[in-house]
Amino acid sequence: MPLLVMKFGGTSVATLDRIARASKRVAREVANGYDVIVVVSAMAGKTNELVGWVEETSPMYDAREYDAVVASGEIVTAGLMALRLQEMDVPARSWQGWQVPLKTNSAHSSARIEDIGTDAINAKFDEGFKVAVVAGFQGISPEGRVTTLGRGGSDTTAVAFAAAFGAERCDIYTDVDGVYTTDPRIEDKARKLDKIAFEEMLELASLGAKVLQTRSVELAMRFKVKLRVLSSFEEYDPNAGTLVCDEEEIVEQNAVSGVAYSRDEAKMTLISVADRPGIASAIFTPLSEAGVNVDMIVQNISEEGRTDMTFSCPVGQVARAEKALTAAKEKGDINFRELVADEDVAKVSVVGIGMRSHAGIAARMFSVLANEGINIKVITTSEIKISVLVDRKYMELAVQSLHDAFDLDKV
Amino acid sequence: MPLLVMKFGGTSVATLDRIARASKRVAREVANGYDVIVVVSAMAGKTNELVGWVEETSPMYDAREYDAVVASGEIVTAGLMALRLQEMDVPARSWQGWQVPLKTNSAHSSARIEDIGTDAINAKFDEGFKVAVVAGFQGISPEGRVTTLGRGGSDTTAVAFAAAFGAERCDIYTDVDGVYTTDPRIEDKARKLDKIAFEEMLELASLGAKVLQTRSVELAMRFKVKLRVLSSFEEYDPNAGTLVCDEEEIVEQNAVSGVAYSRDEAKMTLISVADRPGIASAIFTPLSEAGVNVDMIVQNISEEGRTDMTFSCPVGQVARAEKALTAAKEKGDINFRELVADEDVAKVSVVGIGMRSHAGIAARMFSVLANEGINIKVITTSEIKISVLVDRKYMELAVQSLHDAFDLDKV
Repeated sequence: MPLLVMKFGGTSVATLDRIARASKRVAREVANGYDVIVVVSAMAGKTNELVGWVEETSPMYDAREYDAVVASGEIVTAGLMALRLQEMDVPARSWQGWQVPLKTNSAHSSARIEDIGTDAINAKFDEGFKVAVVAGFQGISPEGRVTTLGRGGSDTTAVAFAAAFGAERCDIYTDVDGVYTTDPRIEDKARKLDKIAFEEMLELASLGAKVLQTRSVELAMRFKVKLRVLSSFEEYDPNAGTLVCDEEEIVEQNAVSGVAYSRDEAKMTLISVADRPGIASAIFTPLSEAGVNVDMIVQNISEEGRTDMTFSCPVGQVARAEKALTAAKEKGDINFRELVADEDVAKVSVVGIGMRSHAGIAARMFSVLANEGINIKVITTSEIKISVLVDRKYMELAVQSLHDAFDLDKV
Repeated sequence: MPLLVMKFGGTSVATLDRIARASKRVAREVANGYDVIVVVSAMAGKTNELVGWVEETSPMYDAREYDAVVASGEIVTAGLMALRLQEMDVPARSWQGWQVPLKTNSAHSSARIEDIGTDAINAKFDEGFKVAVVAGFQGISPEGRVTTLGRGGSDTTAVAFAAAFGAERCDIYTDVDGVYTTDPRIEDKARKLDKIAFEEMLELASLGAKVLQTRSVELAMRFKVKLRVLSSFEEYDPNAGTLVCDEEEIVEQNAVSGVAYSRDEAKMTLISVADRPGIASAIFTPLSEAGVNVDMIVQNISEEGRTDMTFSCPVGQVARAEKALTAAKEKGDINFRELVADEDVAKVSVVGIGMRSHAGIAARMFSVLANEGINIKVITTSEIKISVLVDRKYMELAVQSLHDAFDLDKV
């Protein structure tokens, strides 16, 4: 029997009515001939309530107890959906993480999945059960304690189940109807993509598109799990949403698939650094130790033994970065004349696996921005992505003009 | 290390403040030198909310899913109390039913405890943990599903842990401060008992005193677990509450320990029944099959081959009893002239293990009631209890005069 994994997030199971609606989608896939593993989140708001109780009870909480308390939300949803499916004459039962078992390491509150047992659930499918409703976000540690997987844990659970059971596809139901060429709030010609490659989705996810957690996309790419992102609030449509898949499955590939942006960027420049071998390490080691997430790095051409070093990091980490660099200067580890922070920047990126075969995308991007009078402050590139820092006031204009120039509104 | 079991009901853990207050009591017993197993209920109202969701989702619900959903309430309380205790520097961890494991049979929603594993918790005590906070009311079935124990399940859990771990005592914290000689709302001279024998508590529990569930008292009696009932809202007092214990431990024993009552009684009389061997069976078998809980039974002296048969049952079952008996008459299984139901009665009982050694308690009881002009309609007795049915309007007077006559206000 072909198998499907369906994952419903918190807003999709926020009330008994929504659980009933989600159950209808599951029943329809059963009618289509699938065995289904459903992965559910807690009802929207429940996890926050439980986390609030834990933090109020114990500000420096024991993560093992936090996990035990917080994982209870998914247990409730899983049981309720199993009951709802039974009411619709669909043979279903709920599974808690430890029952599956979904084995993790002992890193409570951000545990990594180590193994998913398939025997117990497969035995139930063999008995005639059509649906296993799994409480997402949770597992069991080697010590037999309940663990949780951290942010995006239910997406990760779903992908891991799809991999372990060899599912035909993993459908992620959420409150958006797919992945767009860019944010429709900024560019009203933004178009929903029918398909996107894992690598592109990864770049988009890490660039701030909130649709899927990076971790679940990485896992899907590693195990070649076809992911589909779609809305639980739209009418049923077998071709709904966006399929995230291997690039081989995407026949017609534009050079650029999407334009991403992030407002949460600051640019920092160390002016007139004494240039010597090992200087980059001397700068970025203390930043890393201080927990600063450095993103882009640019080193200018050195003149007379001195150079300028520019990097970007999240706005909220500027003070921390300044402190770490000043301390390193005082210790004599590095030497610079001045440290300039610019918090008024934004990052705009074009992403597309087509860049590998299409030359000149970068040049095209720079000329589009130049034509709009937008100055580029920093550039970085990867095999399938070009990112630039620009003044924040130009961010929307940059997104719109790039979307237009690369014909992203057209299939 | 001596071990104590402490059980906190839903009202005692209804809020984070109350969980903190209960945790203080636990910490005090740890300071007194005890290892402690705490058994907690769900926060007051939570279980009802979860049951409501289940019933709305699936009116004829699968009890296995019901149990999985409903047991989540206790998991939350257990984790929060473990966290609170850790905040107070008391080494504690939470335990879910399956982690202990508390093994039950497969009778979901009213499962029976079959075994409690002591190794895992004892290993933690050996490591220096002082408190095991156990989610009450729940266990694991032979099939690996979560089970719940039904009404009074957390009391039963506590007593079973006390028996399994050989606890010095099992303290049941609730919203009343002990067991009284009678209901203080009816007799203001009612006195809290310092001690009461298991057998007496059982009679009182089944007679409608709401303090402890019958099942937990039976279990305590079987395994000789000393039970103490006390309030979680009073100041700390090592001698608070009422100790439910073996009768040998009660040195000074009044003939009568308490007066119980129940308003929920109806008297039914079958007039002029054809008397023959097997007639009682012919009457009470259909009643039992109809789910009527017959309590007292009296058969009058038979005259000329006919007799009157009187019994009592809960008021809400009168219609059902009438239907069953009428059907039996129509089928020819029994023959009677008339069926008279009197819903205007109440049951008043005096209970005391001292009755075994004190003669004449029944005679005394009847004369006290006669002196007040109260007519006795039905009498039943056991070794340690005498119950009478009287007109409901006389119930309070009967309770008060018996309380007075047997000197229950005096130690």
